Amino acid sequence: MGCAKASMMVFRQPVTFVTGNAKKLEEVRAILGNSIPFQSLQLDLPELQGEPQDISKEKARLAAKQVDGPVLVEDTCLCYNALQGLPGPYIKWFLQKIGHEGLNNLLMAYEDKSAYALCIFSLALGPNAEPITFAGKTPGKIVLPRGPNDFGWDPIFLPDGYDQTYAEMPKEVKNTISHRYKALALVKSHFAEAGYIFKLDDSTF
Amino acid sequence: MGCAKASMMVFRQPVTFVTGNAKKLEEVRAILGNSIPFQSLQLDLPELQGEPQDISKEKARLAAKQVDGPVLVEDTCLCYNALQGLPGPYIKWFLQKIGHEGLNNLLMAYEDKSAYALCIFSLALGPNAEPITFAGKTPGKIVLPRGPNDFGWDPIFLPDGYDQTYAEMPKEVKNTISHRYKALALVKSHFAEAGYIFKLDDSTF
Repeated sequence: MGCAKASMMVFRQPVTFVTGNAKKLEEVRAILGNSIPFQSLQLDLPELQGEPQDISKEKARLAAKQVDGPVLVEDTCLCYNALQGLPGPYIKWFLQKIGHEGLNNLLMAYEDKSAYALCIFSLALGPNAEPITFAGKTPGKIVLPRGPNDFGWDPIFLPDGYDQTYAEMPKEVKNTISHRYKALALVKSHFAEAGYIFKLDDSTF
Repeated sequence: MGCAKASMMVFRQPVTFVTGNAKKLEEVRAILGNSIPFQSLQLDLPELQGEPQDISKEKARLAAKQVDGPVLVEDTCLCYNALQGLPGPYIKWFLQKIGHEGLNNLLMAYEDKSAYALCIFSLALGPNAEPITFAGKTPGKIVLPRGPNDFGWDPIFLPDGYDQTYAEMPKEVKNTISHRYKALALVKSHFAEAGYIFKLDDSTF
């Protein structure tokens, strides 16, 4: 706490949350509240290959350079334990190409159907700052699709300790156990402890 | 032919082949011969997600900006038909994490073990030029590993019409049927037909 206060930082612009997804922005606002000044921006950033944390950090670096100010970026992975964490950051392409059935088929050779949902937020305080990452992880297993099919791979992910998939459970329940909720909770704690100061010019916000 | 000559281009620097792999450079030199002035350079370019052609083009654009001249970049994919072309550009990570056995296991649910090896070269003539792509494709199927295990996924790829995997066959054979050979042959034809002119200052080459 003393440390954080000693390195107190002052910002002249709000934190830019990079997303083109209105739903995600809403979720971020709901969890982070009004204590932190936010704006959202859709940037055409390259999607990178690599380890989840590295992908997220690099995206934050690129975004902070473009925005020339503090940014927050978000990435989601679905990691199969039998496949050493894959499809992981490439889940989007696998879902798009082979669907829920294909995502089950990938595990046909394995008894171990366990997986974890991973959400990583990276915060870069400026164009030259090393990004800080916040990872939220929810363990579960891959099952045949159950529940409404309107949000990605939610129908095939059964979180440990529940008998409903992400898609089947009420949003109020999902939003207290989800990988994204857990990562955002860490972001919130960080802001609460770091004591960043925002001195915004009204004309820019 | 008339068209190509009408848009004849003059270059003041050799084509930069972006690679950190001495073996690949050797292969490019062997196939393209001395007709085209080449230099190689290892650049720290981001590896992107997406469709193979788009990944390659974007890499060429980034490289041409860094080099500020003509560049050639190369990408390799291993595409399973049952998985709609995946793992594709992500094959490197799958090989690294789950190995040859895991790469076979991905197809356990499917009778169709067919796949194709895909090599894409992209040529960007300068920092603002739209890259031109050259794709070489070799059809085959995924088998249990056979042959020396010293070059990526070669032991599990059995090209159609052969009873030896890439790893088992003599290099002289592989290098006349491989995806990389086919893509490079297209690059070579392009240079032969385009009639680019290289006026190099001796001090820079």
